[in-house]
Amino acid sequence: MELDHVNIATLDASALAEIFSDLFGLEIVKRTEVADQGVRVIKLSAGNAVIEMTEPTGANTPVGRFLAKNRPGLHHVCFRVDDLRATVADLLAKGVTLVNEEPTIGAAGLPIVFVHPKSCGGVLVELQETPKT
Amino acid sequence: MELDHVNIATLDASALAEIFSDLFGLEIVKRTEVADQGVRVIKLSAGNAVIEMTEPTGANTPVGRFLAKNRPGLHHVCFRVDDLRATVADLLAKGVTLVNEEPTIGAAGLPIVFVHPKSCGGVLVELQETPKT
Repeated sequence: MELDHVNIATLDASALAEIFSDLFGLEIVKRTEVADQGVRVIKLSAGNAVIEMTEPTGANTPVGRFLAKNRPGLHHVCFRVDDLRATVADLLAKGVTLVNEEPTIGAAGLPIVFVHPKSCGGVLVELQETPKT
Repeated sequence: MELDHVNIATLDASALAEIFSDLFGLEIVKRTEVADQGVRVIKLSAGNAVIEMTEPTGANTPVGRFLAKNRPGLHHVCFRVDDLRATVADLLAKGVTLVNEEPTIGAAGLPIVFVHPKSCGGVLVELQETPKT
């Protein structure tokens, strides 16, 4: 299982992407919006992995509610898996709590699920299915 | 600049490393202690990057104080740089606040500095010098 990206929740993805680009030389590689999750997303390449900035499109969205209760900052990590449904079945068999058991489509256009932080030491973990080539 | 690792602050690094190993198949590659930072560290390989679990050795340590005020979870990200002193000089010239301007030796045995979260959208960023080959 490889790391796909590290996600940062922010109120201004463009401003934060400019900061990381300026300070650390990370290149902005994608800007997108995921309407059903209420987020605007900017992806920056760190070479071996992606740093993703997520900004809520409104207060009544998952990231909007997160930022109403928490400071901006690191939000989740995402690993790539080969077979998401098999991974979900395996995690459920191990008693893991998922945020969503039915995959949705994430910012990369690929199926994703989120594993609940209470099963991962307080860390929100996203699992993203690697496209079959 | 490449991503070296993602760090998770926890009260029990061994237990959390077992969870990430069991659930996500990450391999434990290193266990170490950094006495002058008061941390025990376990590194797991995600292939392209490292997931690092940090446990404080006592309450009166940077991570101990962090966990007295914050829940366990994602703590910082670390990028590799070629020349740490040149990077520090560049960041200071840009008005960035560093936690430590003078490099210390981190869990990988390499020189590191931390950039203050207030300069990075709430994200604590570690910079680690890549060994010259």
